[in-house]
Amino acid sequence: MKQFISVKDVANINSIVEKALAYKANPLVDKALGADKRIGLLFLNPSLRTRLSTQVAAKNLGMEAIVFNVDKEGWALEFEEGAIMSGNTVEHIKDAAPVMGEYFDMLAIRTFPGLQNREDDYSEMYISQFIKYAGVPVVSLESATLHPLQSLTDVITIQEDLINSQRSTVKSRPKVVLTWAPHVKALPQCVANSFAEWMTAWGEVDFVITHPEDYELAEKFTVGATITHNQDEALKDADYVYIKNWSTYNDYGKVYENDPKWMMTNEKLALTNNAKVMHCLPVRRNVELSDEILDGPNSLVTLEASNRVWAAQAVLSEVLKSL
Amino acid sequence: MKQFISVKDVANINSIVEKALAYKANPLVDKALGADKRIGLLFLNPSLRTRLSTQVAAKNLGMEAIVFNVDKEGWALEFEEGAIMSGNTVEHIKDAAPVMGEYFDMLAIRTFPGLQNREDDYSEMYISQFIKYAGVPVVSLESATLHPLQSLTDVITIQEDLINSQRSTVKSRPKVVLTWAPHVKALPQCVANSFAEWMTAWGEVDFVITHPEDYELAEKFTVGATITHNQDEALKDADYVYIKNWSTYNDYGKVYENDPKWMMTNEKLALTNNAKVMHCLPVRRNVELSDEILDGPNSLVTLEASNRVWAAQAVLSEVLKSL
Amino acid sequence: MKQFISVKDVANINSIVEKALAYKANPLVDKALGADKRIGLLFLNPSLRTRLSTQVAAKNLGMEAIVFNVDKEGWALEFEEGAIMSGNTVEHIKDAAPVMGEYFDMLAIRTFPGLQNREDDYSEMYISQFIKYAGVPVVSLESATLHPLQSLTDVITIQEDLINSQRSTVKSRPKVVLTWAPHVKALPQCVANSFAEWMTAWGEVDFVITHPEDYELAEKFTVGATITHNQDEALKDADYVYIKNWSTYNDYGKVYENDPKWMMTNEKLALTNNAKVMHCLPVRRNVELSDEILDGPNSLVTLEASNRVWAAQAVLSEVLKSL
Repeated sequence: MKQFISVKDVANINSIVEKALAYKANPLVDKALGADKRIGLLFLNPSLRTRLSTQVAAKNLGMEAIVFNVDKEGWALEFEEGAIMSGNTVEHIKDAAPVMGEYFDMLAIRTFPGLQNREDDYSEMYISQFIKYAGVPVVSLESATLHPLQSLTDVITIQEDLINSQRSTVKSRPKVVLTWAPHVKALPQCVANSFAEWMTAWGEVDFVITHPEDYELAEKFTVGATITHNQDEALKDADYVYIKNWSTYNDYGKVYENDPKWMMTNEKLALTNNAKVMHCLPVRRNVELSDEILDGPNSLVTLEASNRVWAAQAVLSEVLKSL
Repeated sequence: MKQFISVKDVANINSIVEKALAYKANPLVDKALGADKRIGLLFLNPSLRTRLSTQVAAKNLGMEAIVFNVDKEGWALEFEEGAIMSGNTVEHIKDAAPVMGEYFDMLAIRTFPGLQNREDDYSEMYISQFIKYAGVPVVSLESATLHPLQSLTDVITIQEDLINSQRSTVKSRPKVVLTWAPHVKALPQCVANSFAEWMTAWGEVDFVITHPEDYELAEKFTVGATITHNQDEALKDADYVYIKNWSTYNDYGKVYENDPKWMMTNEKLALTNNAKVMHCLPVRRNVELSDEILDGPNSLVTLEASNRVWAAQAVLSEVLKSL
Repeated sequence: MKQFISVKDVANINSIVEKALAYKANPLVDKALGADKRIGLLFLNPSLRTRLSTQVAAKNLGMEAIVFNVDKEGWALEFEEGAIMSGNTVEHIKDAAPVMGEYFDMLAIRTFPGLQNREDDYSEMYISQFIKYAGVPVVSLESATLHPLQSLTDVITIQEDLINSQRSTVKSRPKVVLTWAPHVKALPQCVANSFAEWMTAWGEVDFVITHPEDYELAEKFTVGATITHNQDEALKDADYVYIKNWSTYNDYGKVYENDPKWMMTNEKLALTNNAKVMHCLPVRRNVELSDEILDGPNSLVTLEASNRVWAAQAVLSEVLKSL
């Protein structure tokens, strides 16, 4: 694997999921694979789970991981071609990326959308420029429109739960519902886009998206999904419910709706097939979903977060093999 | 040892001190003990000595230490049960702690008191919530009311000095004096509380506390100590003088007194039994104590700070053995 | 080597350059040299290349590197002798440096000039105080007036290019030109001072400095260089052109001149002997020099930045041997 930016970089979803679960069973089996290799973890935005799980995954593979908070420890980068740099940006990505490509065997980078200009964000200029100029494989730790390590984790978690639960009530094709939830600020569409992209590419579940009117995601990520504005209808008989807030895509980056009726509660859970509940974290408790669910037996959120290690390890392992 | 939050977690003070001094003599003797183990060092507040000495200690034990500045690299955590998280906190400790417990074999955490509400601070809610939800052993790197790694270091340093100095003038029970000193801002009571707790629990010294009126510490930490407002009297014949500022406990978090007469100087040192002088650092020179003492032969402060490594190593080693 | 603060700490420039190029050919040849040794990398100012390249160099030598951003993770240090610390500084270098000297086998430190008071900056008080009190070898990661790791890298890069290019048109003594360039803010003189000091000490090139009137550097660093205000004349027949902005030295820390005519362009490159172009990065594109040069075949800037690793590795290796 020469890069990991979206589901399109994965040849076979089931086989990378299997690999991740094998690492979970035996974390240090490939400890020699990354010997004398080095990954640079570059953060233009904050991170807790993604950073720590990737550090742990790298270490499990015997590789050194060096974290660099570009925004805090370094300085503002310029991404525009041809810019006359007389403003606040201190260094162009065309100069910074190849240098980091010389220091590291692979680079991983997190960068968020500005949510001001849709065309800018959806062009994925930041991560694309990194890939163009780094000269080494690049792994996304979340970009302007996608969060593929999270989505791989989500597939792993569903697959693991299906194996472990052997719930007789789960259909041969489980029903997975992505539901919008309220939040206190305008969030990116990354996790939702990416989850939709992976669920439809995986193809082993019936996938439904529910959100308020005018909260449609970009069509290119949701082809193959059933979309409805009726949350109750969507939740009916669901086996897995994925809760996530996002801001509007069409009239870009806005918050139209904050109605607590969209918050996930036990009352709504009763509509489902005793569904397991997922969330990528961090979660706003009692805004996106209620304490009773997060602290109850149906929550998979800690399992999901812990699986971030195995998702990262499977991806880094594939990249290492391509070096 | 399943946690290290206060002196109560230590079965035998003299034996952990002995262990620390053995590590000082032979730092790498237990390098295999921490192989493939990982500690997360979480900082909600700044740290120099505590962070670096714990990293060094972990490395000496062959363990990986990953530092995470929660406040700067992550985001604000929520600690209140049942909070409706529509404010500035981004993630609840109930969600963050178990995830970090999945990534690490043990966690160490620094968190300061707010000094606004005594009941809140003295409930030790932050570190207690971490312990409750982390699912792995937790080591305090200083909490709202205590700083046990510092106090263990202080006992080690006194013990080492007693062995090395063989001062014939030292009594069989040395006199140790904790004296309040002026400062420019309101500081926590942690170091003073903890030093008092450890000195009285150790029981091998005559322990005196001196401070201005109305600067009484919480009684639960000072039982067994002699307390006086007369600094000169306290210093008389002292073998060790520990200088520390703290803000008021009763009328919580206030600065009543800033009189330079409480600053430790050579003139005051003359009252003692040629006492060794201790301070946890960072120290405000010529405010808390004078250059002449810090740069003179009686100062133990660098030795004390260097012993932080061996205190941390002894504690981490005990925790490793309990895994 | 007991310290690395300026060219004066290097016994033989050609032999340390040779050592660096040998490491480039075989990075892990001395992996055992730094076993169980530890370097503290202390930053009072931001850094990208210097930090990452030194971390990589330390790792290549088998040594542990711990990064500490003193300004962000710690607190403000006091450097004045005898200060009454009732202001904003929290800890005196006299207390912090010896403690870090206890934790590490060597220390490396970055500190920038204030550009307010020339005497203060040129006294190099910060790094001198560190050296005085640390008790272990100190390596400069850039100080108030010099950036020796950068200059060593620059010599390495010129030497490597001379070997690789075998350009028949290069004279037996190549002509190296340091030219001032415009910038948007007042910058230190460090890189220019240091480059001048190393070029004249190296003695294997004809060295010319060109800058606007009143931008003279401190004479002690430029003895032996030809200095001219006529950039075109300076560039004539140049084999290497080093571009750098600096603020005024005489009327200290000012920006007198911002004329784009000093920007390096292909038109100016035509005056040279097809010169290779160097810059220490970060560079303000289309302010200091043009895209066409940076993206063209004459630019050495990525090579130069990648050579930072080998410069640091050669220096750390020499320091390790002195322990």
